Amino acid sequence: MPQTPEIDRSHDPARRSLVASADGHPDFPVQNLPFGVFSTAAAPVPRGGVAIGDMVLDLAALRDAGLAPPEVGAALAAAADAPLNAFFALGAPARRALRLFLSDLLSGGDPARVLPLLVPMDQARMGLPFDIRGYTDFYAGIQHAMNVGRLFRPDNPLLPNYKYVPIGYHGRVSSIRPSGTPVVRPLGQTRPPGAEAPVFGPCARLDYELELGAFVADPNPLGLPVPVGEGFGRIGGFCLLNDWSARDVQVWEYQPLGPFLAKNFATTISPWVVTAEALAPFRVAQDPRPGGDPAPLPHLWDAGDQAHGALDIEVEALILTQAMRAAGAEPALLSRGSLRGMYWTFGQLLAHHASNGCNLETGDLLGSGTISDPDSPGSLLELSRGGQAPVALPGGETRSFVQDGDEIILRARTRPRAGAAGIGFGDCRAVVGPAP
Amino acid sequence: MPQTPEIDRSHDPARRSLVASADGHPDFPVQNLPFGVFSTAAAPVPRGGVAIGDMVLDLAALRDAGLAPPEVGAALAAAADAPLNAFFALGAPARRALRLFLSDLLSGGDPARVLPLLVPMDQARMGLPFDIRGYTDFYAGIQHAMNVGRLFRPDNPLLPNYKYVPIGYHGRVSSIRPSGTPVVRPLGQTRPPGAEAPVFGPCARLDYELELGAFVADPNPLGLPVPVGEGFGRIGGFCLLNDWSARDVQVWEYQPLGPFLAKNFATTISPWVVTAEALAPFRVAQDPRPGGDPAPLPHLWDAGDQAHGALDIEVEALILTQAMRAAGAEPALLSRGSLRGMYWTFGQLLAHHASNGCNLETGDLLGSGTISDPDSPGSLLELSRGGQAPVALPGGETRSFVQDGDEIILRARTRPRAGAAGIGFGDCRAVVGPAP
Repeated sequence: MPQTPEIDRSHDPARRSLVASADGHPDFPVQNLPFGVFSTAAAPVPRGGVAIGDMVLDLAALRDAGLAPPEVGAALAAAADAPLNAFFALGAPARRALRLFLSDLLSGGDPARVLPLLVPMDQARMGLPFDIRGYTDFYAGIQHAMNVGRLFRPDNPLLPNYKYVPIGYHGRVSSIRPSGTPVVRPLGQTRPPGAEAPVFGPCARLDYELELGAFVADPNPLGLPVPVGEGFGRIGGFCLLNDWSARDVQVWEYQPLGPFLAKNFATTISPWVVTAEALAPFRVAQDPRPGGDPAPLPHLWDAGDQAHGALDIEVEALILTQAMRAAGAEPALLSRGSLRGMYWTFGQLLAHHASNGCNLETGDLLGSGTISDPDSPGSLLELSRGGQAPVALPGGETRSFVQDGDEIILRARTRPRAGAAGIGFGDCRAVVGPAP
Repeated sequence: MPQTPEIDRSHDPARRSLVASADGHPDFPVQNLPFGVFSTAAAPVPRGGVAIGDMVLDLAALRDAGLAPPEVGAALAAAADAPLNAFFALGAPARRALRLFLSDLLSGGDPARVLPLLVPMDQARMGLPFDIRGYTDFYAGIQHAMNVGRLFRPDNPLLPNYKYVPIGYHGRVSSIRPSGTPVVRPLGQTRPPGAEAPVFGPCARLDYELELGAFVADPNPLGLPVPVGEGFGRIGGFCLLNDWSARDVQVWEYQPLGPFLAKNFATTISPWVVTAEALAPFRVAQDPRPGGDPAPLPHLWDAGDQAHGALDIEVEALILTQAMRAAGAEPALLSRGSLRGMYWTFGQLLAHHASNGCNLETGDLLGSGTISDPDSPGSLLELSRGGQAPVALPGGETRSFVQDGDEIILRARTRPRAGAAGIGFGDCRAVVGPAP
């Protein structure tokens, strides 16, 4: 059973930062301190950084400045090097100690020594935070599973295994890109309605999927399952994840072995790893299952995980079309959802993944599956009911699916909570370009 | 359109080796020269090697001996370093030049200088040849697809997409192990016949799948498809692949997103990379599709690929049970098949994989899918007809599925061909141990 989430002075909502833009920042106040990998035009070697307001604390510069006490020296040295695998492999106590040092430094440190270590965020080029060697996408948003199931299998929307098995599949690692990287519209095989033979051409039903991703910190050896009560504790942090999907390709290719080319052309993630430690105040009890639903099998149920394994986070997806951009308009909201809608906790997803002895490695990425609220689904497929009901956008445009030039923007914030400063994930965004 | 396979003096069947055990060796005569990564107890740093008879040529020792002419120096230096990604990324011309040098050295070189560079194969500990970052398993054995389809979906064995889409899914990279690594029987969720709720426990229907794997050598950038005529040319070499499968887990979990825990607990590969160059004499025309089958869509069809893109290779699976081992018996044959039974060429598989812009990387592993001949299927699921017809083994044992203590051994050899020396892959073997 995991311990109660540890709250320390780094979470104090009264804490202010010597970086003025951090105070009241919706994503990166001093209570967040997410880790990422960045470079600049002037210093192109990727290195570790921490987001604080609209600045990035350069961890390599901090390491070289010699401001850290010996007890966090090893953690700082690891976090200063890109990618962040070695740092997260050090485990939660090392992350917690470094976080506390950084929090004290960025709130009560000497501005004359700290401010020179900051880089304006708009000058930072963000890379992938980890050398990701495994990517698994789950399907834990039950509302999404029901919505999509209804479109793909009207008579059989939720399959009999759904409430017992945290359904997931292996995704493609090589096409994961950080926020800001354009997405090329994929080509693919699709079968026109009524036709017997398929055709090959640009995807006509390109979609986004609004997800949260979790990064594994603590590995397990091959052959050794992870108790569900230890599942959450092995996750180092979280990001936003857009699981781009070619719906017309997917419906033709997905049987019997699941999605493949419909998904593996691109996955966009937000570049900042919001740590499990930063989210400690927002760990909540898993919502009870609806009456009549079966209890999870014993290897997927733990009292501590049920008490503290859910995350009180709200997510949203927005669109900025070419026309909206030209008109100087703000992005328009498409989807809004809550992580509370996940049928399984991340601890259950991780324990299920390792339950057969599959070994997870530091930096592995686990996607939640699309987060759909009953009245605000997390993909255009659901919003437009399979293209039948185009979504109206400000300015008179409509969308059934994503068009070239559209930018999709995902965001996530903790739900307001008494006694805690809200934190966020920063943007996960990408513009779609034409097929080759 | 790819060029006609290049045959040079390294393929000459009359060529003899100064390593006596190589002459007439069923797998590793001087005409093969597969690359691998090995270490020894005395020299535990992994390094590149080449199999020759029952010996391994130590490429690091060869590099240090200074016997190579300058024009192959860079290729030898890359091949001497483990893993082999950097070497295979150099491309086919560099591989061909190094192969020719090694062939000349191991046939006509000075024994006094060459023999000290050899390590007995039974002293070599083989590792994975590549840093594998992507693993995709296809389903190109149409006989297997029909056999399994009949068991999983009696009324609908071959789905309508099969003859248009080279069906595949992403596998798990972290659990790929070289031949000789024991496999731990997985735990998993299964639903007993007639029950509504599943149970969790050791897999009761553990199976092997007899496959060939292809390693990508030449990468393609994200967003840029690969013409099918270039597909085969981007493959650097091949291995045997056992896609271990938990059938009882698979049938319960696989809908709608495909196999996951039923497969990702272990994949065993043979450690020697038989190069595309070594297989040049065994590249043959793809068998014509049965009358009535649709032609591949244009992006999956190329005259050169059809003329030279199939491989004339025979594969087999054998079993050695604990009782057979105790009795000193030989392994018993379970499956025998031909790569000619693949419905798609490896060139078509690779081109399909990249057709949506998905980027493939050097060292990526592509599995063929199970190779089943009509009268000799490549898995126990098929052989025992879903467990209904246990297979009789010598000594009076029977098997419906793999039991603890069983060793499964895969082998592959080229089909005898006038004017060419046959070559093989070496063993791909693993013993199954009990669940944790």
